[in-house]
Amino acid sequence: MRSINFITGAAGFIGSNLTDRLLYDGHKVIGYDNFSTGQEIFLKNASKNPNFNLLKGDLLDEPSLTKALKGVNRVWHFAANADVRFGIQHPKKDLEQNTIATANVLEAMRSNNVKEIYFSSTGSVYGEAQVIPTDEDCPFPVQTSLYGASKLACEGMIAAYCEGFDIKARVFRFVSILGERYTHGHIFDFVKQLKEHPNKLSVLGDGNQRKSYLYVQDCIEAMLFVSKELSNERALKYAAYNLGADEYCAVKDSIGWITKKMGLDPKLSFSGGDRGWIGDNPFIYLDTKKVRSLGWNNKLSIRQGIEKTVDWLLANDWVYSARG
Amino acid sequence: MRSINFITGAAGFIGSNLTDRLLYDGHKVIGYDNFSTGQEIFLKNASKNPNFNLLKGDLLDEPSLTKALKGVNRVWHFAANADVRFGIQHPKKDLEQNTIATANVLEAMRSNNVKEIYFSSTGSVYGEAQVIPTDEDCPFPVQTSLYGASKLACEGMIAAYCEGFDIKARVFRFVSILGERYTHGHIFDFVKQLKEHPNKLSVLGDGNQRKSYLYVQDCIEAMLFVSKELSNERALKYAAYNLGADEYCAVKDSIGWITKKMGLDPKLSFSGGDRGWIGDNPFIYLDTKKVRSLGWNNKLSIRQGIEKTVDWLLANDWVYSARG
Repeated sequence: MRSINFITGAAGFIGSNLTDRLLYDGHKVIGYDNFSTGQEIFLKNASKNPNFNLLKGDLLDEPSLTKALKGVNRVWHFAANADVRFGIQHPKKDLEQNTIATANVLEAMRSNNVKEIYFSSTGSVYGEAQVIPTDEDCPFPVQTSLYGASKLACEGMIAAYCEGFDIKARVFRFVSILGERYTHGHIFDFVKQLKEHPNKLSVLGDGNQRKSYLYVQDCIEAMLFVSKELSNERALKYAAYNLGADEYCAVKDSIGWITKKMGLDPKLSFSGGDRGWIGDNPFIYLDTKKVRSLGWNNKLSIRQGIEKTVDWLLANDWVYSARG
Repeated sequence: MRSINFITGAAGFIGSNLTDRLLYDGHKVIGYDNFSTGQEIFLKNASKNPNFNLLKGDLLDEPSLTKALKGVNRVWHFAANADVRFGIQHPKKDLEQNTIATANVLEAMRSNNVKEIYFSSTGSVYGEAQVIPTDEDCPFPVQTSLYGASKLACEGMIAAYCEGFDIKARVFRFVSILGERYTHGHIFDFVKQLKEHPNKLSVLGDGNQRKSYLYVQDCIEAMLFVSKELSNERALKYAAYNLGADEYCAVKDSIGWITKKMGLDPKLSFSGGDRGWIGDNPFIYLDTKKVRSLGWNNKLSIRQGIEKTVDWLLANDWVYSARG
């Protein structure tokens, strides 16, 4: 069935890749973005498609948002302040751009009688999980970042709207996503450093932090599996899914793959400690049995995803100036 | 050690009882309330105490709040939209009065270098718990009310501030609290109905909903035990405690105790269904081993707490006109 999809953050990393995929599958897409970090170039192909409509707008502008959602079947709410590291430098940013923005999306859905939402949450909602690999039903988490706290707040509101207003929702708890149009995170930073100074690399923490990643096309494929699950008549109103590769790597592994790909052998210096920044989690590895039970599996390994990302960053070095 | 305690919602049910107790123990108290539901009469005794200072202000007025927190040692953040039932009638209220208000409290603490906060959360953050009695580490909850979602959002921000800004926090997940100055909830509503029409009583749901309660003085005593635990040098930065009686009762039990206390035998009519309202939880019973391990036990049973509440409501029927 063709449907009208409303994608917030449509000009962002995941949002623009999803836009392309849904258009390819024959759906209509309305993109909504304030271009604070989104890039028009990511929507270059989409813009040529008659099934695509781009609206420049801010989620904090509730009247515009409400108007924009008219006639929509399904919301993919992916706009966010997406960087977990800088929360304590501007403590209200996650509240405003994630929590309050999501409240506005839910209200706009209610006004327009839109009954289906997919939400980009994060594995950071688990804080420093007591159970690893961490499954969706793990013990009640303690937040360690304002980013994770804001995404948890969003998840809670979405679930309450499902109960109160009879909407259906699927929440995706992502590991770090990699691939084409990736514009923030440690690979972005490492490649940037190495382009400027090929012989040295500064690393936050001791390099032993273990993290999981997922290639963006695998991520999108997983979301489409979940979307199909939701279309079942007996589907739960609300469910959360971990999305990640079934493996993890150390930051040092990642550095080895990046430098090899770039043909470099830089001198490494470590800031030390088992955390890269306040609120960093030294070990993130999500249990993804739930989404795999739907038939999905990632096609690319973490290493392959990292290599694709490096290729893309090297071929698109304009992203470094675009992001300042 | 005498300390300067800042109590938000100081004119409310729990806030005013805590104010009286801390003053009795020789502490200084700054009360902060916007009197949207708080009652000046609850602070009548406190106002005579030279250690008490009352500030009329709103938590959404961040500059006033920031000014008010100067010199404070400890915050008891109890101001809230406290009624779980009406969230879907005004979906932004819990976000504004709970989530955003709490963000402002945390920022005002940071500006003033205040390092200790106690927070009135709720057992509603467990949604419809998979495990009953529900302990603090139960499986990752799914929210069923905007009220619960907003309190969960507050808990998350508080925990992230502990990690990011080196503050210490204790979060209280209350069952329904009963006793003197109780001004909302099912006993309030039942007594009101019975005063107007002694021969009939309308009950939301089928009357079989099972809930737990705690008498307000027991609640305050428990919080003081937790406050003592936090003063230990090796105390965790952040912890959550369930506070409740070690029992539960059905709404029908509660009705029996209330009507007996009032000497009435009304005809009951039930709205039906196992929930009193959308988002109601048919069975709330918290595991309170964690707080009991500190040496605390409730002195009053649920029945005794309900009877004390009925006595107080009958002796203070002005609260019905005060609340409209």
